[in-house]
Amino acid sequence: MNTQDKLCALRRKMDEAGVNAVIIPNADPHQSEYLAEHWQTLKWLTGFSGSAGTAVVTKTNAGLWTDFRYWIQAAAQLDHFTLFRQGDTDVPLFDKWLTNTLSANDGIALDGKMVSAAQADSLKKKFAQKGIRVDTTMDLISDLWLDRPPVPRTAAFELDVAYAGETRKEKFSRIRKKMADYNADCHVMAALDDIAWTFNLRGEDIHTNPVNLAFAMIEMDKIRLFIDPAKVSPALGTTLEADGVALFGYEAFYDTIQALDKKSRVLLDPESVSDFIYQTIGMRADIIERSNPSVIFKCLKNGVQISHIRDTAVKDGRAVVNFLHWLDTSNASKTEISAAEQLLNFRKEQDAFIHPSFDAIMAFKAHSAICHYSAGPDTDLPLSSDAMFLTDSGGNYLTGTTDITRTVHLGTPSSQEIRDYTLVLKAHIAVATARFPATARGYQIDAMARRHLWQQGLDFGHGTGHGVGFFLCVHEGPARLSTLPIDITLKPGMLLTNEPGLYREDQYGIRLENMVLVIKDRETQFGSFLKFENMTFCHFERNLVDKAMLNLAEITWLNDYHQVVYDRLAPGLDVPVREWLGHKTKPI
Amino acid sequence: MNTQDKLCALRRKMDEAGVNAVIIPNADPHQSEYLAEHWQTLKWLTGFSGSAGTAVVTKTNAGLWTDFRYWIQAAAQLDHFTLFRQGDTDVPLFDKWLTNTLSANDGIALDGKMVSAAQADSLKKKFAQKGIRVDTTMDLISDLWLDRPPVPRTAAFELDVAYAGETRKEKFSRIRKKMADYNADCHVMAALDDIAWTFNLRGEDIHTNPVNLAFAMIEMDKIRLFIDPAKVSPALGTTLEADGVALFGYEAFYDTIQALDKKSRVLLDPESVSDFIYQTIGMRADIIERSNPSVIFKCLKNGVQISHIRDTAVKDGRAVVNFLHWLDTSNASKTEISAAEQLLNFRKEQDAFIHPSFDAIMAFKAHSAICHYSAGPDTDLPLSSDAMFLTDSGGNYLTGTTDITRTVHLGTPSSQEIRDYTLVLKAHIAVATARFPATARGYQIDAMARRHLWQQGLDFGHGTGHGVGFFLCVHEGPARLSTLPIDITLKPGMLLTNEPGLYREDQYGIRLENMVLVIKDRETQFGSFLKFENMTFCHFERNLVDKAMLNLAEITWLNDYHQVVYDRLAPGLDVPVREWLGHKTKPI
Repeated sequence: MNTQDKLCALRRKMDEAGVNAVIIPNADPHQSEYLAEHWQTLKWLTGFSGSAGTAVVTKTNAGLWTDFRYWIQAAAQLDHFTLFRQGDTDVPLFDKWLTNTLSANDGIALDGKMVSAAQADSLKKKFAQKGIRVDTTMDLISDLWLDRPPVPRTAAFELDVAYAGETRKEKFSRIRKKMADYNADCHVMAALDDIAWTFNLRGEDIHTNPVNLAFAMIEMDKIRLFIDPAKVSPALGTTLEADGVALFGYEAFYDTIQALDKKSRVLLDPESVSDFIYQTIGMRADIIERSNPSVIFKCLKNGVQISHIRDTAVKDGRAVVNFLHWLDTSNASKTEISAAEQLLNFRKEQDAFIHPSFDAIMAFKAHSAICHYSAGPDTDLPLSSDAMFLTDSGGNYLTGTTDITRTVHLGTPSSQEIRDYTLVLKAHIAVATARFPATARGYQIDAMARRHLWQQGLDFGHGTGHGVGFFLCVHEGPARLSTLPIDITLKPGMLLTNEPGLYREDQYGIRLENMVLVIKDRETQFGSFLKFENMTFCHFERNLVDKAMLNLAEITWLNDYHQVVYDRLAPGLDVPVREWLGHKTKPI
Repeated sequence: MNTQDKLCALRRKMDEAGVNAVIIPNADPHQSEYLAEHWQTLKWLTGFSGSAGTAVVTKTNAGLWTDFRYWIQAAAQLDHFTLFRQGDTDVPLFDKWLTNTLSANDGIALDGKMVSAAQADSLKKKFAQKGIRVDTTMDLISDLWLDRPPVPRTAAFELDVAYAGETRKEKFSRIRKKMADYNADCHVMAALDDIAWTFNLRGEDIHTNPVNLAFAMIEMDKIRLFIDPAKVSPALGTTLEADGVALFGYEAFYDTIQALDKKSRVLLDPESVSDFIYQTIGMRADIIERSNPSVIFKCLKNGVQISHIRDTAVKDGRAVVNFLHWLDTSNASKTEISAAEQLLNFRKEQDAFIHPSFDAIMAFKAHSAICHYSAGPDTDLPLSSDAMFLTDSGGNYLTGTTDITRTVHLGTPSSQEIRDYTLVLKAHIAVATARFPATARGYQIDAMARRHLWQQGLDFGHGTGHGVGFFLCVHEGPARLSTLPIDITLKPGMLLTNEPGLYREDQYGIRLENMVLVIKDRETQFGSFLKFENMTFCHFERNLVDKAMLNLAEITWLNDYHQVVYDRLAPGLDVPVREWLGHKTKPI
């Protein structure tokens, strides 16, 4: 079927179902950030392959909404869908557009398994204001998608407590204590990384995210894990059962919540369970709406994890330094894609490396100005020597997850490139050196970084940092360093990125990213203070730094950091790379 | 009656009403920040005269909750009430305490006219979790308070459009447009400053806040103002009626909402109308919950107002400079209270001055470490020459409202005092020089100021800034520069304070406050940028500045600012004061 055929078939389905529009989000039943192919419905229907977007089909219109990161890509990929540049001036959001397009008493289909309860609730309320109903009980897609890829079925495996630092039984106990605090007797989990963390399980069901498709239900006297039995080896099954985990098939979850005890008090998070789950449980039991206890537990890394993260920083730093050395010195012909392969090879040399934590961004020249650029066969640029090159990548090791961005110039940088790089470095150092009270939130740290750019009329369109999992998702909640008013205080043990940037469209982009761990600073009469410990070791580019733009504290920070980078990495580097790094880390 | 008698009488009332507890907030029927004496119920009942607190009386306990600003004062004033240090470690909030103290099926009385609908809703939900009911229909106080001061009855007067910059009819029209956007046909207003702004009326019903007690109801075809007719002169009444305003008595408001058309769609803000109003209207009509349109209109000062504010800054600056000159040079014996009188006299010399915008804080030595210190006969310190002195004051002029804080040393400052003053000045300059995109919120600016203190393990317990009215309340929403995640973007025309501080308990406090106006900065390829225009002219203290701690940009800012202060103020100062200011504003 081509797009035209798919649209015709979908509109026939809409007629049969008696609805005037259908909303197709880019989502799976777990509200995952990245999707297994089975759930890449948006791509199948529209042809657009970006990671964020929403399609809306009415009887006469078909539109795709996506944000600025994907406007260029979407314009190239769409044929029978109109592109709505979400966030652009005078472009209505899809809900606003639908409200204006539909009439009172019209109906919209939205598959309740593919939208969070919170999102569905918000949409229903908005449409209700105009008397438009939203039906979340219909899946109009599955019958049409004949060659749909199967649900993934990779094997689940145990993350040893030597890496996790805490047994699953200890985690169950902490979660149950929180449930008791909330007066809940049942906790339903759908978020895959929460389940992976809680059960000390990992898998490969989602590309680069080491999770298993599963649901979980924790009660005071029993624990149920809903997972395809083919994924669980007999040995793992025995281990889980010994820890009190009863195993059920993945789909059995839906039967189970339909048979819930009417007196249950169920703890769940409307942001992370689907509308379908929420409605099904809500019809039977009392719902206690709270963030999953595992969200905050998971983000606070324990001593064992922190020790592994420190070691991983050294391993990953060596891989990236080897890569940057290769980039600088090798005579091999290089392209964006071959560079990614080369870096992956250097990471594979490191102990306990499993796979990349996301598809590496290797962006040359103007590509580096595209925040989420992904090189494909059509765009793959040869790396000539006259421009900026941005490399953003990470590894998933048994010993932790990494995320690092460096920007280099492959030839001789211009004065504007040097000025921009130095401003981004100042923003980076503002975070690296920040000291803040235990009541501080991420938006305050973000503002300290951004000020250096704002004063010059510059800015960047993404957050300064995000949480990072432990051999888990590279984007992990709940804390962020962003402009948004997110009321999450920073706590010791949170692992975050520090990645300010600057993007000049059609010219170049710069991003400088390290990981940082929140640690205790000091107690004063004004309270407890925190600071960051650097968790990434790789030099910055001396030839892109204008020393005159740095103050003494910034110069000291850079020189001290470079000394640490050299001292930590040098012992494991080959002699030529070590000597090269010695030059790269000389004091400015 | 003494406190003991009042408590006995109140408990009899509680028995008659069949409730187990009563909550007495510090509030009036308009959710005002400052209260007319008629509504100072908390003070009457408990003896505590601070501006923030909540009393709770059960059959066996009587407690008063107040925050750290008032702990010392409350401890001294309370006799039969237990002080709960709100915010202190392990001290439960009053609702938590009540939940722990009462049993299921117990009842609490809370006068629904004295609590906002939003607060009441939140409390009802919390107590309902334990099966405790909240009755908001009972006023247990009025019958007991025999010598209650009358409801204030000051005359209302017109704020000429030459000051307001916009006629009330133009304002009605803008509000009605917003009502139409929200599909509302009626808008109910209870906030006194919103009403004063909308109707271009001022009064003196609340000490230092130039408002009239009133309610308002705006419909598409009529406008009703509910105000004691004794306050409205025949001439003013005629003017109002000519603009389409129908006048009704203050209490007639409650009858009117009880007779609302069932089909009405009423726009109101649950944060600013009382629970009683909300419930009464909610029983009859549809409620559309939104912030009053006047909140955002009022905070965006128009061109006429801005022009007046600029002139007022010069007048008010002269008054404060005259005062600081007197403080520095006069041989008269001075105390905190006499200093306040002296400053008021200097303000009275200025054109169009009406009254202070709040009771001035004149705080010597350790008093300056108390953020909201108020000198009384028992505490009034003579101003000897060996310590820091903090003066925070403001004026209400027909031409605008001012708010300014300066801290001086009356003798020779210590190195720690100089260091602290310089850090606070750096925080102040960080705000004064900030440039930020049109999407920025106040918490980002607050973080820029606070960073200078945080890096040293220091902090201050109040926001960096608040909105300021125009010949209206000195604290005006909705924008603030604070640590809180308040999602209000800064917009050109907002008038805010810039007042970082530092308080060393039992030693001294420092606060440096100017007013700043948000104005346009520039357009870049990264968007629209904004900055602040300084709206306060008064020097800082050169002898408290450690030049070595300032960077070049900060030194330049200070010297440039001092030049402007001298240039603007000098023409209207007496020669000795002018010469004195010349020395004070010399470049550092």
